[in-house]
Amino acid sequence: MDLLISGGTVVTMDAEFRVIEDGAVAIEGDTIKAVGKRAELEPRARGAKIIDSSTALVTPGMINGHAHAAMSLFRGVAEDHSLNDWLQRYIFPAEANNVTEEFVFWGTRLGVLEMLRGGITTYADMYYFEDVVAQVTKEAGMRGVLGQTVVDFPAPDHKTPAAALAYAGTFIDRWTGDPLITPAIAPHSIYTVSTENLKKAAALARSKGAPILIHLAEAPFESELSRKKYGASPVAYLDQIGVLGPDVVAAHSVWVDAIDISTLVRHGVGTIHNPSSNMKLASGVMPVVDLLAAGEPVGLATDSAASNNNQDLFQEMNIAAKLQKVTRMDPRALPARQTVEMATIGGARAMHMDKKIGSLEPGKQADLILINTNATHSTPMYNVYSQLVYALNAHDVRTVVIGGKIVMENRVMMTMDKPAILAKAHEYQKKVAASLVEARVL
Amino acid sequence: MDLLISGGTVVTMDAEFRVIEDGAVAIEGDTIKAVGKRAELEPRARGAKIIDSSTALVTPGMINGHAHAAMSLFRGVAEDHSLNDWLQRYIFPAEANNVTEEFVFWGTRLGVLEMLRGGITTYADMYYFEDVVAQVTKEAGMRGVLGQTVVDFPAPDHKTPAAALAYAGTFIDRWTGDPLITPAIAPHSIYTVSTENLKKAAALARSKGAPILIHLAEAPFESELSRKKYGASPVAYLDQIGVLGPDVVAAHSVWVDAIDISTLVRHGVGTIHNPSSNMKLASGVMPVVDLLAAGEPVGLATDSAASNNNQDLFQEMNIAAKLQKVTRMDPRALPARQTVEMATIGGARAMHMDKKIGSLEPGKQADLILINTNATHSTPMYNVYSQLVYALNAHDVRTVVIGGKIVMENRVMMTMDKPAILAKAHEYQKKVAASLVEARVL
Repeated sequence: MDLLISGGTVVTMDAEFRVIEDGAVAIEGDTIKAVGKRAELEPRARGAKIIDSSTALVTPGMINGHAHAAMSLFRGVAEDHSLNDWLQRYIFPAEANNVTEEFVFWGTRLGVLEMLRGGITTYADMYYFEDVVAQVTKEAGMRGVLGQTVVDFPAPDHKTPAAALAYAGTFIDRWTGDPLITPAIAPHSIYTVSTENLKKAAALARSKGAPILIHLAEAPFESELSRKKYGASPVAYLDQIGVLGPDVVAAHSVWVDAIDISTLVRHGVGTIHNPSSNMKLASGVMPVVDLLAAGEPVGLATDSAASNNNQDLFQEMNIAAKLQKVTRMDPRALPARQTVEMATIGGARAMHMDKKIGSLEPGKQADLILINTNATHSTPMYNVYSQLVYALNAHDVRTVVIGGKIVMENRVMMTMDKPAILAKAHEYQKKVAASLVEARVL
Repeated sequence: MDLLISGGTVVTMDAEFRVIEDGAVAIEGDTIKAVGKRAELEPRARGAKIIDSSTALVTPGMINGHAHAAMSLFRGVAEDHSLNDWLQRYIFPAEANNVTEEFVFWGTRLGVLEMLRGGITTYADMYYFEDVVAQVTKEAGMRGVLGQTVVDFPAPDHKTPAAALAYAGTFIDRWTGDPLITPAIAPHSIYTVSTENLKKAAALARSKGAPILIHLAEAPFESELSRKKYGASPVAYLDQIGVLGPDVVAAHSVWVDAIDISTLVRHGVGTIHNPSSNMKLASGVMPVVDLLAAGEPVGLATDSAASNNNQDLFQEMNIAAKLQKVTRMDPRALPARQTVEMATIGGARAMHMDKKIGSLEPGKQADLILINTNATHSTPMYNVYSQLVYALNAHDVRTVVIGGKIVMENRVMMTMDKPAILAKAHEYQKKVAASLVEARVL
């Protein structure tokens, strides 16, 4: 045993939803060896580092199923616009004017830093220069499913989709087999990528066994466009052109009907709920309860800090549970435990990684977090799931372990230089603001 | 000058929404004397205590328009129930079995502690033993509009509404004129208080110039009951029996149509939005945009920690803005600045206190907070209002000043013994859980 997380309440999120009071988690290398009572595991810990978790909840690391980490540098740059306006009038021009390899390097560091500090141990990314994203993520000791973006228009990293596809191939080859990084390909959406390029991206991913990340059925304009152009819903269209499969992770999936849902389930597609982004951009409300009832794996995500405006998965849990209740006028909808599932083992399922992460069980990767329970806003505590969803927040995360390595301990970062990252972010803020004034975007 | 808040960005929330970079606020006694540039005010600060706010936003203290502070001891005790079930099957029995004067003493301390730590400087309370609530609130140095509850059924503090009314009269007399405490009367709702007792409560309040706090038009069952029993909507019914007036603060006001809204505006009633509680209990969505457009003052609130489950007004701002956008499918609905207004000067208007609090202006009470802006999740910052609503959270509040007195400085409480309060809360948790098992409520 190399590391023992000892004491407190262990919330396993295993198949029996075991919650172990005065529990412990034993770790060897990157793997969980045992989960049980402290009294049983502590005597076997000779020589191991011991982390005292006696005033904490110990939970699986949280899984952020959809993000654009580098966009953290655009946090709050344009507000109160619909998805299409926001993208076309603000974000795409802001990206064209600012996004370089160096921007992605620092932006991703900022995003990863925020995610880690909030207890996120795995994230899915869709952005540009994804090789840089992989370097930053690995250096930070974080787990990532990192999708190189393909779009039809000239992107910050590649002038043509063909160039992006070529880069994606090299990128996937370079990172395949890495213990932390899963390289992926990310055709942006059905409204920014042609049928031909969607097919090419899927073929490339499948030739290399890499996942496919895509925005799907996010907003009404997308469904309209799909029906007009392809005579089908976005889900049905992707089904028709052969893109759907058990390697696809579809972000949003707001505008899906019963037939779409059965299509997603049949193909083993994972879906990711982004409540803050969907609310803020007025994209709509994902029918999470219906999807889960149909057996569809649904994960949870922050989306980018430009449409949220933070990377706090506790807040997403909180909002997700409440949003289903009020829009269905059913207070029993999406109860707390099921919501925690979406941020942990359910998210792992949606990302096709549930054999490896998402719960605290022997044999799984040692990705776990300690969450303080001795704060005013989390006292008293009658139920751990209630507390996680409705009372606690990202700042309560005390310590983060990923693949057996301590990434943050008592809120001190072990792998990242926080002051340097924040200083660079301030520099970029000035640059971005000036560029947008110059380009008459703002 | 006794105190100078010096440096950083001063967000005044005055009529011109002035935001002063490198600003300062000068305080004498309990009153704001000047708001301006640091360079202007600092030379005049000889002898004054200076608080460095150079890496902070300085904003008016937040106003929580509807709470039941003592219920913090019931945080998360019963989840996933509708308002009526939750009240009748869980909360009222839990209260009958647990709520004593001592419970209210410690529960209110817990609630007040959490609110202060999250930057709330004024709150409206509706509960039992309100004289104890007033003592605790004053001792903590917090501002409160504290409403003694009147209900028809035997309450934890009084067996009859007549007894509650008598107590309320004495309570109001005792606290009238206090610089921090505004005593009020709180007939619970139209479904728990008879017409006769509603009228008596209103008459008592008006004879003493005290505000009237009430739950109004919160959930569908209330509207149904009102229509069946009184042949009118809840708002129209209260209008008919003479309860509405410019001294009324109506919590929730979810189920109001255009006629109800014009009735509320005509009478000068203030309304309070409780997004988390309304979502969690599936009560519905307040038509905030319509109310504001009609000129109705709308404040923001946490409701109790039993239906939320925290007392974080940053979270309520975040959720309020997003909820209006998605339910109206309009991303421009309830923009960030208007949302901050609801938590500050707009809330003061709804509580009929806007001459005294709600903005940083000379002559107003010196209620203000410092919010850290150098955290990862709030970097970079392009717009202060965006940041307040969408990125920052209660934990970012660093220092709290109420009526010129420092209540929390650098997150250290000056007026409350946090460890003692949390220890008592843990004791109560055991008692409450045991009592609910015994009473077969849980």
